[in-house]
Amino acid sequence: MRVMILGGDGYLGWPTAMNLSAHGHDVLVVDNYLRRNLMKSQNVIPLYPVPELDERTALWNTDHDNRITFALGDLNEWDFIAGLFRDFEPETIVHYAEQPSAPFSMLNRESAMLTLQNNISVTANLIFAVWEFAPQAHIVKLGTMGEYGTPDIDIEEGWLDVEHNGRHQKFLYPRQAGSLYHTTKVMDTDLLWYYTRMWDLSVTDLMQGPVYGIFTDEATSDERLLTFLSYDEIFGTVLNRFIVQAVAGIPLTVYGKGGQTRGYLNIKDTLNCIRLSVENPADAGELRIFNQFTETFSVNDLAAKVSGAAGSLGLDVTVNNLPNPRKEMEEHYYNPKNTGLLELGLEPHFLTEDVLVEMLEKVIQHKAEINKDVIHPATSWT
Amino acid sequence: MRVMILGGDGYLGWPTAMNLSAHGHDVLVVDNYLRRNLMKSQNVIPLYPVPELDERTALWNTDHDNRITFALGDLNEWDFIAGLFRDFEPETIVHYAEQPSAPFSMLNRESAMLTLQNNISVTANLIFAVWEFAPQAHIVKLGTMGEYGTPDIDIEEGWLDVEHNGRHQKFLYPRQAGSLYHTTKVMDTDLLWYYTRMWDLSVTDLMQGPVYGIFTDEATSDERLLTFLSYDEIFGTVLNRFIVQAVAGIPLTVYGKGGQTRGYLNIKDTLNCIRLSVENPADAGELRIFNQFTETFSVNDLAAKVSGAAGSLGLDVTVNNLPNPRKEMEEHYYNPKNTGLLELGLEPHFLTEDVLVEMLEKVIQHKAEINKDVIHPATSWT
Repeated sequence: MRVMILGGDGYLGWPTAMNLSAHGHDVLVVDNYLRRNLMKSQNVIPLYPVPELDERTALWNTDHDNRITFALGDLNEWDFIAGLFRDFEPETIVHYAEQPSAPFSMLNRESAMLTLQNNISVTANLIFAVWEFAPQAHIVKLGTMGEYGTPDIDIEEGWLDVEHNGRHQKFLYPRQAGSLYHTTKVMDTDLLWYYTRMWDLSVTDLMQGPVYGIFTDEATSDERLLTFLSYDEIFGTVLNRFIVQAVAGIPLTVYGKGGQTRGYLNIKDTLNCIRLSVENPADAGELRIFNQFTETFSVNDLAAKVSGAAGSLGLDVTVNNLPNPRKEMEEHYYNPKNTGLLELGLEPHFLTEDVLVEMLEKVIQHKAEINKDVIHPATSWT
Repeated sequence: MRVMILGGDGYLGWPTAMNLSAHGHDVLVVDNYLRRNLMKSQNVIPLYPVPELDERTALWNTDHDNRITFALGDLNEWDFIAGLFRDFEPETIVHYAEQPSAPFSMLNRESAMLTLQNNISVTANLIFAVWEFAPQAHIVKLGTMGEYGTPDIDIEEGWLDVEHNGRHQKFLYPRQAGSLYHTTKVMDTDLLWYYTRMWDLSVTDLMQGPVYGIFTDEATSDERLLTFLSYDEIFGTVLNRFIVQAVAGIPLTVYGKGGQTRGYLNIKDTLNCIRLSVENPADAGELRIFNQFTETFSVNDLAAKVSGAAGSLGLDVTVNNLPNPRKEMEEHYYNPKNTGLLELGLEPHFLTEDVLVEMLEKVIQHKAEINKDVIHPATSWT
């Protein structure tokens, strides 16, 4: 299948590209290095250097007959995205091309505006490009479990059947996100749902939880194929951050009480979820929504797991409960459903001590490169 | 109270400015003439000319000690809106500054992008300006009943208590709009609700139905103070359009079966709803939502009422059921609640034959100026 990956240089974009290529798909990767540029401008460099797309694709293509191609440009520009659609004629588009950091979106007005304009405009341009050039194509959109927030009822997969005054209606599950970044994903959902109804688009919206890990099957041959490992307070997701803190000998930074519970998944499962979605497309006129995570943990659970695994390597880990820089519930009900992708065939990789130890050992190799100044939360929600 | 009216040159913005000024408020009107420019570019001129803000405010200020001031500029530009907040120090902001036409938002990609970017960016800039310069100020935002769409259950005022698997949660009432324009209002709601929670903003979001009429108490002294009367397929709301069609001898253009039911209100009631909201602000941290309409009618009901009133003036009116250019339900359940504004003191002006006859008589004075070419629907939703 011809698959275009928007945001294909990112933490998940590049591993997805290799995975789909390894499974026989023709992959075009598109990026404008927004994340790289934001990391540079915020002085938060990943743990080890990651080559740019020219070098990564060349490395991949040396060893693989099924080549990955790439295009550099800004998907906010209509002429650029229109040209890509005309030339590549995608059958599937995997859309990761968004400013991906919640703390970055809360830094200041400029970062909020960049997040809002970039994320909404790219999604809109994608919709218009599909409508004009590839109306049968399948859009696989990365949403987030964060769109739902932490309601006091079970979180269903995307939809909610409501009974009210004796009558019934199926609605999009009501969303109430916890950062501007997450709110832009809610707004993306509004747009995709509207145009799916109007134009019979075929859309899979993946409500993904925080992802952890860096190792994927296609990055074993050459270390330069590994994805980013961000551990700073802006771009580092919580488990990856804790692993680096454990190695650096910094107390794990738990925000507030640490009862915040979310659905997590291994990066290997992200790739499998995407491939399952790509190879089993939504119907025309269908907005198909899956909750993409495999296990739920509180932040305290994660801190305990990392402490345990680090202890097995002789590292002494402490936990520091910081004043919460975010405005969120620190104790709450959380019962999200996630049967859709399991029914498509997902076989989860759970968060075992082996998984944590493998990551810790990798980070230990780079211990000297850890910048301890970028870990403490500096971005306040209010 | 110092009230800033964003979009103060529009169909509702200018009458609101006069009304609030007449009731003793200090009013600053802001506009960039987006609507005027779009009307010109689409060749859809209102029935009679309406002076620009320099002339309108000068006219008003000649007869009133309580002056209305105005500022021309684009609220997408941060420096402009920041300057207004610094200088005027608003206590209330009434936000009408959006591309207001559903058909325009569905014309083509460019019109969709303009609608999306303008409406979201202005709302975001307003939020950031309030946060930075006037955190206690009250935002009165014009939403639309169209945000709710036509669900098969009762439409509550903004919120819905959901019981699910034995647990309870209050949500924003789920929204599913019928045009891109209406979808941008849903996205505005997402933004306002997010920042109200984060930053304790004080917000009233008015879910307004289609407005009809042109006569308001403050425009009686000089005809040049009257608001726009658009009757074209892009900017004309349905009842105003039918009135002009009846006078022009054109069959009333009912889209599809005509069972589409909405909540309507007289422009006089819009002004009273706004003033009641301004003078009874929402609390800090409160997103207060009112459904702003006074009566529900189907399109067929409106066609019958206009035919009846026109008949009393000797006009012979026929109805033409056209293929529906929109994608919408033509027969549906519709039971929206609207108690909030009544409890604040609203005394509705209902759609009587007298109201219709007064409008018909005004349009008859301008019969020679009606351009029959702009009425037939040319904008398709698909």
